[in-house]
Amino acid sequence: MIRIAVLGAGRIGRIHAANAAANPRCRLVAVADIAEEAADSLARSLGCEASRDPAATLAREDIDAVVIGTPTDTHVALLLAAARRGKAVLCEKPVDLDIGKVDAAAAEIEGLGARVMVAFNRRFDPSAAAVHRALAAGAIGAVRQVVITSRDPAPPPPSYIASSGGLFRDMTIHDLDMGSWLLGEEPNEIFAAASTLVDPAIGAAGDFDTAMIIMRTASGRQCHINNCRQAAYGYDQRIEVFGARGMLLNDNLRPSTLRRYDATGTEARDPLLNFFLERYAEAYRLELDAFLAALAEGTKMPLTVEDGRRALRLADAAHLSARTGRTVTV
Amino acid sequence: MIRIAVLGAGRIGRIHAANAAANPRCRLVAVADIAEEAADSLARSLGCEASRDPAATLAREDIDAVVIGTPTDTHVALLLAAARRGKAVLCEKPVDLDIGKVDAAAAEIEGLGARVMVAFNRRFDPSAAAVHRALAAGAIGAVRQVVITSRDPAPPPPSYIASSGGLFRDMTIHDLDMGSWLLGEEPNEIFAAASTLVDPAIGAAGDFDTAMIIMRTASGRQCHINNCRQAAYGYDQRIEVFGARGMLLNDNLRPSTLRRYDATGTEARDPLLNFFLERYAEAYRLELDAFLAALAEGTKMPLTVEDGRRALRLADAAHLSARTGRTVTV
Amino acid sequence: MIRIAVLGAGRIGRIHAANAAANPRCRLVAVADIAEEAADSLARSLGCEASRDPAATLAREDIDAVVIGTPTDTHVALLLAAARRGKAVLCEKPVDLDIGKVDAAAAEIEGLGARVMVAFNRRFDPSAAAVHRALAAGAIGAVRQVVITSRDPAPPPPSYIASSGGLFRDMTIHDLDMGSWLLGEEPNEIFAAASTLVDPAIGAAGDFDTAMIIMRTASGRQCHINNCRQAAYGYDQRIEVFGARGMLLNDNLRPSTLRRYDATGTEARDPLLNFFLERYAEAYRLELDAFLAALAEGTKMPLTVEDGRRALRLADAAHLSARTGRTVTV
Amino acid sequence: MIRIAVLGAGRIGRIHAANAAANPRCRLVAVADIAEEAADSLARSLGCEASRDPAATLAREDIDAVVIGTPTDTHVALLLAAARRGKAVLCEKPVDLDIGKVDAAAAEIEGLGARVMVAFNRRFDPSAAAVHRALAAGAIGAVRQVVITSRDPAPPPPSYIASSGGLFRDMTIHDLDMGSWLLGEEPNEIFAAASTLVDPAIGAAGDFDTAMIIMRTASGRQCHINNCRQAAYGYDQRIEVFGARGMLLNDNLRPSTLRRYDATGTEARDPLLNFFLERYAEAYRLELDAFLAALAEGTKMPLTVEDGRRALRLADAAHLSARTGRTVTV
Repeated sequence: MIRIAVLGAGRIGRIHAANAAANPRCRLVAVADIAEEAADSLARSLGCEASRDPAATLAREDIDAVVIGTPTDTHVALLLAAARRGKAVLCEKPVDLDIGKVDAAAAEIEGLGARVMVAFNRRFDPSAAAVHRALAAGAIGAVRQVVITSRDPAPPPPSYIASSGGLFRDMTIHDLDMGSWLLGEEPNEIFAAASTLVDPAIGAAGDFDTAMIIMRTASGRQCHINNCRQAAYGYDQRIEVFGARGMLLNDNLRPSTLRRYDATGTEARDPLLNFFLERYAEAYRLELDAFLAALAEGTKMPLTVEDGRRALRLADAAHLSARTGRTVTV
Repeated sequence: MIRIAVLGAGRIGRIHAANAAANPRCRLVAVADIAEEAADSLARSLGCEASRDPAATLAREDIDAVVIGTPTDTHVALLLAAARRGKAVLCEKPVDLDIGKVDAAAAEIEGLGARVMVAFNRRFDPSAAAVHRALAAGAIGAVRQVVITSRDPAPPPPSYIASSGGLFRDMTIHDLDMGSWLLGEEPNEIFAAASTLVDPAIGAAGDFDTAMIIMRTASGRQCHINNCRQAAYGYDQRIEVFGARGMLLNDNLRPSTLRRYDATGTEARDPLLNFFLERYAEAYRLELDAFLAALAEGTKMPLTVEDGRRALRLADAAHLSARTGRTVTV
Repeated sequence: MIRIAVLGAGRIGRIHAANAAANPRCRLVAVADIAEEAADSLARSLGCEASRDPAATLAREDIDAVVIGTPTDTHVALLLAAARRGKAVLCEKPVDLDIGKVDAAAAEIEGLGARVMVAFNRRFDPSAAAVHRALAAGAIGAVRQVVITSRDPAPPPPSYIASSGGLFRDMTIHDLDMGSWLLGEEPNEIFAAASTLVDPAIGAAGDFDTAMIIMRTASGRQCHINNCRQAAYGYDQRIEVFGARGMLLNDNLRPSTLRRYDATGTEARDPLLNFFLERYAEAYRLELDAFLAALAEGTKMPLTVEDGRRALRLADAAHLSARTGRTVTV
Repeated sequence: MIRIAVLGAGRIGRIHAANAAANPRCRLVAVADIAEEAADSLARSLGCEASRDPAATLAREDIDAVVIGTPTDTHVALLLAAARRGKAVLCEKPVDLDIGKVDAAAAEIEGLGARVMVAFNRRFDPSAAAVHRALAAGAIGAVRQVVITSRDPAPPPPSYIASSGGLFRDMTIHDLDMGSWLLGEEPNEIFAAASTLVDPAIGAAGDFDTAMIIMRTASGRQCHINNCRQAAYGYDQRIEVFGARGMLLNDNLRPSTLRRYDATGTEARDPLLNFFLERYAEAYRLELDAFLAALAEGTKMPLTVEDGRRALRLADAAHLSARTGRTVTV
């Protein structure tokens, strides 16, 4: 039985801790957060220990693995500390906003031969996984175009924007990973057009809130991503892959299949599952399970720091392209 | 070129006349209605002759075929008059509300060897025809169950109810024909449960407005029909056929594929096509064309008076079952 | 914390035991089954005690509640034994196949004031619950018609048929409960037409495999149920409720939203979730939670033995109607 | 009654001629094509005159309006000849492949005050028109992003590619017009990424077969277009408009609503309507009707040469962008 600790008791830490508590492959030993009350209340509800010192927790002899769900600027330090002590790590994305720090961390981790997985949770979503499986099975032949729609229900507070690294590093990074995964080839060119159409305060903070991106691989495959920080109708997460022999589409999820017809004559359905904690609840569960399974079975991590590094480089390139109006070679 | 006249310039006559005017297989010579103004205005818009004497029109030497779209109580007389003069006839349903008169007419028509088609337009609806074609091609194996949903957007005026022959002969008759057609076997038992849930005035007139019917064939195949004189969301026309190897479903039609997502988060679509003139516009066109094609090519009529007779007998049996609470053998 | 035991370690007992183990409102103390190996292996995987004596287990002082998932013919004895000792009970349906025994049990349970819930799991399905909530909120006005489609992917083995109580008591009973719940009024008339279209062996065993039922309430509301023991395309579970101001529809569930388009040009989707353990996994979880919530909060059980009794009486009446071809008054 | 002639008796000329013959606002007088047999056979089937001299036909005193459906390189000469004689013109797109010739023609037409409509048929598609109407009614607030999917079922023959003007001027031009129309603002920047993924012969002819385009307006609205010369699943024509208060989606059309479920368990639907003559049959009919209505009522043409000019400039800019990898300002 893998003994695990979760670092961070905020929104994302709580998800991982609850999944760890329910997963038969592991035993949740402790949750740690510098905010004492957050750690205490989470530990109490899950029946594990609480700590207000993440660094001390990851160093415990009786801990085999940690999940890092603390603020982004603490990821690298905790990740390396854990790796140096031989702990397996599931680290929330992004590894860091600075590609230089990520490069250095990746190099050290490789040198250590550490078991580290970066948490691009969407790859574990059952519908996204079904697309990838169908591609791998040759269901639609060679990929030609990928289209990813990714719009949030509401923008984060302005305070978050400032420290977020910007739209591309904070939000698009998920889609850049997904696009690379589905293209089946590394993108080597990226173009981005970006605007501020939602909230002028976002523009004033030097960021964008609405963007369209095109990536291209060496063989000519293309991927389009569209993003917006706010969609009135909810969290919009769709995928389309078009190949030589067909097309695959994923639609949004709703809480029930209920359709209502009233005197307006239209067919109405439930609102979309709103927001990532609900929409990707199953993905978070499966992601942790995949991490634990790789540990238990000694197999390759399904996602590594290299994947995090690659996505961040694409995000940086998209940022540069949006500023210059030119294609950026990656 | 078949020379054709349309008898009746009301709602249904106007549909047939416009289709005749546009069909390259025939030439619309005249429209006739005892209401002079209706005949005149229709004739003017389509560039043909007008008459206020349907009987005289059908007797014209230069007419090969007539469409009978006059009130139900005139059908048999006009149908027989036309048949006796060797004219081909497309007659609106029901042939008559009295099964005795229909039996007599059917016998005389058979004796004359007359070319008569009864207008169960729904069989020509592209989606219903696609279901029937798939059945005939063995797409789902032997039929087990048929479910027909047929609800009108709004009840007819009380005055109409009185002379309509009642829910089963007026409205269900279409579904009884459709059910028999899709079962692929003659129903020999029928059961009906009926209520007045829409308008007490309909009950006061001795009729029902909401009904559920079950038909059964000798081999045990089953058909369910549900009817209501009023559906708040519009004209509901759906078909389901369940067989040994699969299922076929037909959904309602809408004017466009538009889906709207707004701040309520639901997906909304266009209202249903509302009412039979819109919903079955294409079916009426194809029905006339099938009639003309059978004439031009000398082939069997796709629907005969016998089909009308059979549907009326089922309607009479459903009526009796609803009154007695017992299965009626047909 | 409610201390619970699960009686029966077969297919359904395993579901309940796993849900009990994961539910924070209770602690799974033991599983009991006369088949020692089944009890042992289930207990081992969930970390609880095993017993091969259900009667002894329910009598334990440290048990507050039991889930009865043993064979149908043991339900009443275990249910009454538990009730007499003051244990709360969640009992699988049907309570018994003999209405006389169910009547007697219901009377004794009422006299004891025991806390007993009958497990009509489908009422807890999120989509069915969404329909019921919408009805209660008046979304479509007064109910006029309910249509329930309920077809199994494959028939049970002939040996099961013989002891099942027949199609209506074994399979339709779920739909009879669902129909009564959605009609919002007690049905007082029922009609059934039944056939053997799937397997002659089922007919030889004196049962039917394909049926259509109509129920009617005193005010004239109507409910249609269609059943078949085998559907080539999988487990078909749909609900339609038609009311004075609109309609509600529930569709089947699939594992993902994936749609595939290939060279045939059609749009293909994932197969339906197949069979009740998968399709109603969430319903089983929510059902147990509702039972535990009612215990914890001291509120009324969401479903009682009376609901089981009512559904069985409708099943008996449907059986009689199918044999006689007449409406049966309940 | 407007007296009309159709120039060109090829694929597109036949569509326009049949629509003119059936439209009550006009009388089809003649069809003209230098290919005598094509003109004769079309004229015979529609009951009008045939000519093998388009220029002479448009000059006839008794002709009020002409539809130009001849090869692209003859458009400008016929268009100007007709305009100079005071004939109204519905001209197929593109007006010409050379923006200089289009500019000159546009200037002369404006000087003449001639009544000329350019045939971007898709604007008249009922579903596209429903999107535009909903936008105009403010259904989703200010537009932020438009996504247009436009893929052909099969590439044209290599011989056609050479004289087509290339992917952007031949195929994308429709989508550029649609995107501009739906953005509600003129795009002033365009970026294109293009590849040859379908057929190397297309690349050898100096053209692309697969492209992704992004357009941006001055206020920051964005439009994505994706194109491919070949889609295994048929003619893919979808539209998405995302605005401040919601989203509008248009899906593809199929011949019927039939859904089939078989032993694979999937839901299958009819193939897409395949190709533009079928998919846009109604749009062609409504386009001609809009042209005739504008003539009959003396109102503004719904589309002018200016619209053709604008779309061609965008196509030229997309072509340049694809060659240079840079955003092109329009």
